Amino acid sequence: MQTGVHRFSLPDPGDVSGLALAIEEGTVDPAEIVAVIGKTHGNGLVNDYTRGYLAQSLALLIGQATGQSLDAVRTQIPFIFSGGVEGVLSPHYTVFTVSAGHTPGPRKGLAIGVSFTPELLPEDIGRQRQIDVTADAVADAMHRASIDAPEDVHFVQIKGPAFQQGDIVSSMRAGRPPITDNPGKLMGFGRAASALGVGKALGHVPPARAVAGAVLKDFDLYSPVASVSAGVEVRCNEVVVIGLSARWSGDLTITHAPMADALDISGIHTMLGGLGFAGAPQLSSSETARIKACFVKCEASRDGAVRGNFHTMLNDGDMDQQRHIRGAVGAVVASILGDTALFVSGGAEHQGPDGGGLVSLIVEHNGEG
Amino acid sequence: MQTGVHRFSLPDPGDVSGLALAIEEGTVDPAEIVAVIGKTHGNGLVNDYTRGYLAQSLALLIGQATGQSLDAVRTQIPFIFSGGVEGVLSPHYTVFTVSAGHTPGPRKGLAIGVSFTPELLPEDIGRQRQIDVTADAVADAMHRASIDAPEDVHFVQIKGPAFQQGDIVSSMRAGRPPITDNPGKLMGFGRAASALGVGKALGHVPPARAVAGAVLKDFDLYSPVASVSAGVEVRCNEVVVIGLSARWSGDLTITHAPMADALDISGIHTMLGGLGFAGAPQLSSSETARIKACFVKCEASRDGAVRGNFHTMLNDGDMDQQRHIRGAVGAVVASILGDTALFVSGGAEHQGPDGGGLVSLIVEHNGEG
Amino acid sequence: MQTGVHRFSLPDPGDVSGLALAIEEGTVDPAEIVAVIGKTHGNGLVNDYTRGYLAQSLALLIGQATGQSLDAVRTQIPFIFSGGVEGVLSPHYTVFTVSAGHTPGPRKGLAIGVSFTPELLPEDIGRQRQIDVTADAVADAMHRASIDAPEDVHFVQIKGPAFQQGDIVSSMRAGRPPITDNPGKLMGFGRAASALGVGKALGHVPPARAVAGAVLKDFDLYSPVASVSAGVEVRCNEVVVIGLSARWSGDLTITHAPMADALDISGIHTMLGGLGFAGAPQLSSSETARIKACFVKCEASRDGAVRGNFHTMLNDGDMDQQRHIRGAVGAVVASILGDTALFVSGGAEHQGPDGGGLVSLIVEHNGEG
Amino acid sequence: MQTGVHRFSLPDPGDVSGLALAIEEGTVDPAEIVAVIGKTHGNGLVNDYTRGYLAQSLALLIGQATGQSLDAVRTQIPFIFSGGVEGVLSPHYTVFTVSAGHTPGPRKGLAIGVSFTPELLPEDIGRQRQIDVTADAVADAMHRASIDAPEDVHFVQIKGPAFQQGDIVSSMRAGRPPITDNPGKLMGFGRAASALGVGKALGHVPPARAVAGAVLKDFDLYSPVASVSAGVEVRCNEVVVIGLSARWSGDLTITHAPMADALDISGIHTMLGGLGFAGAPQLSSSETARIKACFVKCEASRDGAVRGNFHTMLNDGDMDQQRHIRGAVGAVVASILGDTALFVSGGAEHQGPDGGGLVSLIVEHNGEG
Repeated sequence: MQTGVHRFSLPDPGDVSGLALAIEEGTVDPAEIVAVIGKTHGNGLVNDYTRGYLAQSLALLIGQATGQSLDAVRTQIPFIFSGGVEGVLSPHYTVFTVSAGHTPGPRKGLAIGVSFTPELLPEDIGRQRQIDVTADAVADAMHRASIDAPEDVHFVQIKGPAFQQGDIVSSMRAGRPPITDNPGKLMGFGRAASALGVGKALGHVPPARAVAGAVLKDFDLYSPVASVSAGVEVRCNEVVVIGLSARWSGDLTITHAPMADALDISGIHTMLGGLGFAGAPQLSSSETARIKACFVKCEASRDGAVRGNFHTMLNDGDMDQQRHIRGAVGAVVASILGDTALFVSGGAEHQGPDGGGLVSLIVEHNGEG
Repeated sequence: MQTGVHRFSLPDPGDVSGLALAIEEGTVDPAEIVAVIGKTHGNGLVNDYTRGYLAQSLALLIGQATGQSLDAVRTQIPFIFSGGVEGVLSPHYTVFTVSAGHTPGPRKGLAIGVSFTPELLPEDIGRQRQIDVTADAVADAMHRASIDAPEDVHFVQIKGPAFQQGDIVSSMRAGRPPITDNPGKLMGFGRAASALGVGKALGHVPPARAVAGAVLKDFDLYSPVASVSAGVEVRCNEVVVIGLSARWSGDLTITHAPMADALDISGIHTMLGGLGFAGAPQLSSSETARIKACFVKCEASRDGAVRGNFHTMLNDGDMDQQRHIRGAVGAVVASILGDTALFVSGGAEHQGPDGGGLVSLIVEHNGEG
Repeated sequence: MQTGVHRFSLPDPGDVSGLALAIEEGTVDPAEIVAVIGKTHGNGLVNDYTRGYLAQSLALLIGQATGQSLDAVRTQIPFIFSGGVEGVLSPHYTVFTVSAGHTPGPRKGLAIGVSFTPELLPEDIGRQRQIDVTADAVADAMHRASIDAPEDVHFVQIKGPAFQQGDIVSSMRAGRPPITDNPGKLMGFGRAASALGVGKALGHVPPARAVAGAVLKDFDLYSPVASVSAGVEVRCNEVVVIGLSARWSGDLTITHAPMADALDISGIHTMLGGLGFAGAPQLSSSETARIKACFVKCEASRDGAVRGNFHTMLNDGDMDQQRHIRGAVGAVVASILGDTALFVSGGAEHQGPDGGGLVSLIVEHNGEG
Repeated sequence: MQTGVHRFSLPDPGDVSGLALAIEEGTVDPAEIVAVIGKTHGNGLVNDYTRGYLAQSLALLIGQATGQSLDAVRTQIPFIFSGGVEGVLSPHYTVFTVSAGHTPGPRKGLAIGVSFTPELLPEDIGRQRQIDVTADAVADAMHRASIDAPEDVHFVQIKGPAFQQGDIVSSMRAGRPPITDNPGKLMGFGRAASALGVGKALGHVPPARAVAGAVLKDFDLYSPVASVSAGVEVRCNEVVVIGLSARWSGDLTITHAPMADALDISGIHTMLGGLGFAGAPQLSSSETARIKACFVKCEASRDGAVRGNFHTMLNDGDMDQQRHIRGAVGAVVASILGDTALFVSGGAEHQGPDGGGLVSLIVEHNGEG
């Protein structure tokens, strides 16, 4: 088995001509697509419909190419999009393919597995059920990826449901009140519970502590490889697990680094060194070409400060905190990698150290290792 | 003569308790204050009143401390504030003082001079008059700073007037139409013309090309040390020139570096090396402590791309391009310096290379040079 | 011929279950659909992708129902969506159908015709070509609607192309510079030129004055029935003409009223009286039930004032002027009609009196006339 | 005693030239000023500093005119400002004066009284202490106004403290956690508790139900004359009670009307009829001239709908719900009164019917009553 990673620019959430051309030219076999992860133009909040638009556009294209119905495509392939390309970031989507018939080499190859939880209702979000079904789905995806050890998992991307005010009111009237009546806050609860689910599945969070009472409270609990987004365009937790496995082949590898705070670039540089990159403070353009995909999770620190100076992100009524922090941390990582087509997602509750985040990087081997 | 540089945190544009305490404790002599430059909480656009609020608050404090009227203070001291502390940036203000009676040492000291143009009306903005009176004021401030050579000037900060829609309509009705009827665009014209004025004064732009017809057109023309903001709270161009002079003493120095684009950190690292800092990719906390003030100018590239990938900053109807670029470039510089109390200002027309910008840095000597 | 008008709620730009159910239940024959006009959740500016998302969703549904390809549907049916449902406004879409085989009655019936201009490029926007091809398309649509006299036209809705920064830069590099390099401003030029085209076709603007030089300059020139939007999701001017014709039958009628300024409700009340409504200041719920669709065009007055008091809409860097004015005028009209599913569109250049706008109303006859 | 009501336009939060001129011309005696209520340019949320800027500007002016210190002025005069002039609304401030030596006439005159609670800390907000001290202050202000019966109170305006993230974090670290760690939500708790305090003082809410447990829960409980704002510029609840009293004289009167929802204009028209205005649907300009001040409180309905159609205000991540609803309801009231210098404030928790609001109107008698 071999994982292919194909990154395309996204001029408009309805313009998937990049993948269309790759299919036409034979670079991507549409039948081999197993997941798509991307950044779209919206605000990344409740009323971001660019995620759903891209999902529909891609499902249409893939369905036409494979002869499947749009619904069939959407239930097989996780389309995980995060809105918000603030600052230098560039909208794009990364298509993951799996091809069979390859003989594993001496080193572990890039492995990917996907899974879906059952449907989640507004009243499930942020609660024990979401933690538990997510943990199950992560274990399932890991198994499907033939990844044996949790330490070989370097990135777990989840997209879970968000709900508009109308859905929340309907649930309340039906006697099944969600954990909050605020649609934006409900997104945060969903990210947090899902992250605890990841942590539970991978052993980062003891099962006894992966409980509803810890959600958005015990920020010491986190998974260092979890990245969770929410959106109104999905109705279950869609799970993609990426790591390394001896049963996979190919020239790609993945690793990850924590960010202790929004300015912490030391882990990234250590990670780059481990991958054989020479070049701090910024990769050379030939080094940048080795990067196949980069995933970043970050958040505005809840204590209102970065390295002793206060920030204004949590007081701002004009611009959401997520738009602030994605633009900032995205630019920091871009300035190191020399690449702006990064998946940078805000809302890192229980995903990496409190106030900090996570960087996962898929690169081509440099031919040495 | 010796320049003092005192940076204070700004919890609220009306809270100048930092300077108040420094005056009370004798750290700052209010009679020695010659200029204040800072970042406030607003959006940095036409309807940003946090700049005027801080100016009023500081003038009140300094007037009380020196026995002067508020008006007297405001006509002597440039209060140059730029709104917008996106991402990790932290609101703050830097108070510049000048004390006499010091004997110059063997190396050039940090020198500062201020000047004011005559009042500028809406119809002057972006036109030849603004270019010319700005050039005169820069020359005057340089002279007052006893800086002999243009290459010893490392930072020219200007704050010029912005106008609300009502002022523009009044000018149009009076038969004196401004260059545009759009208040936000008029701010850009003002920054551009003022920057050409700096370039003319310092020899970066040939006088024959420092003309109205070049404003927002000939982007090859720029001053590498100009930083211009506009705001409704001022009515003339207030000019602060900072550089090095053999007639000044003290332990501080200033230098500057260009940024070729929003990710260009090479010049910054070269500059840091020249100042005796060891530490790429990020200064250690003891090195960070040597930084007294940092000024950054940046802009969203007009060609819509950064290193080959398109950005969305100029298409965004929810969040102004300046909020995007300040948050991005501010975080990049903060990640190198380990400091978030940076003056980062957007709108870099004719201020540094097109699509890029400027970093000026005031630091303590490291005791070696 | 008879026009059907079917209004559906839009919970999400990808949720067209309202029309799907109507097709399933036989209320709407998908083969009879000739146009759809609606309001979506976005900001109504350059980066509003909710319009394209709804267009794609509807084209998918209609294509499946009629056995046509998505492309075939999109080239036959204008999908005209305006983003921005500020304040009390509610996202919705109105489906227009035409059925044959009806005998005209004694009074004129509601008539509709559609037409498309050739493709328009960035460099065509705001220029003579856009004026002229729009005038031709309006004449064509009027002819197709069998409307004989311009005074029987009560609403002309146009959707024209908008372009992102990347498209504009491409045109500039190809030596075909658009009239402005600002994507948002280009939308305004396009609305303005298209409105002059409507005025030219209907005789509201003398042909000799419907010229490029008048665009965004001679605001005395306007069509009282034109409503123009722009969006990145279309590539030509899509035109829908609605009016009255003796060759059409049915129980529906249309009329229109000007608004002299954002508070001018006198024309609306006069119009309502003419339609047999009793009820100022607000329609009763049974009267509201007679309303089939309402279209409103409005703008923030360029002189910066409403009835002598200045407004802040044109100074605001956080919230676009269109979001301000749609929310305000939309609520005013909703408070009269008791209905919030209104099509309210900002940017009324040459569409109604300067600083004011247009209200067009499709209602059921009250059985008397 | 006689109340004077003087309304001034506010071009900029730092420009109080309107009042300055009135003092200079003798129209307003600065020593008689007892309260100022106004609308400023900001967003009305946590990071709105325009309120504090105007308060400082007015205190400076009044202090200079009366020979008092700025601090003395600010502890005597409530400066109650609400940010947000969306749509047609116009920034302004209304100065209330009280002059003695007038003989009461046969009818009750416009009466005003002010009071201040003790300082409130972050941990007091939304809790019993805020309810109780507010109730006491309302009773005190009512007593000072010589208003005997609660039914003679037609408007109670309160401004209470808001806190930035830094203050909240400080309280948490000190072991005194506020009721929420979200600065914006804390503003809502403060408005709600204060409104219950008003209701308790005036008998609209039974004392046994004016309890912390009812805050933001029992929306059946409300005061029909309460209007509460919060802002970082104040540190206690500042209270202004306005009503009618036989001990006051003058040509002004006040009354109020509820709004059942955002479109409910029936109560306003009934109120206008009671005041002797002829003119539905819109006052004539001579009738408009009788209006001295108008105060409106409104909110986005929590059930997500207005008259059966859903709204998007509570799902919007780009534009706060308060900006939506102020622009909408403000325009509705302006379209009736023909006046845009209205005090329109969002966040009407326990202030008027759930999802609706309050309109209070001060007018000149029409010479008849």
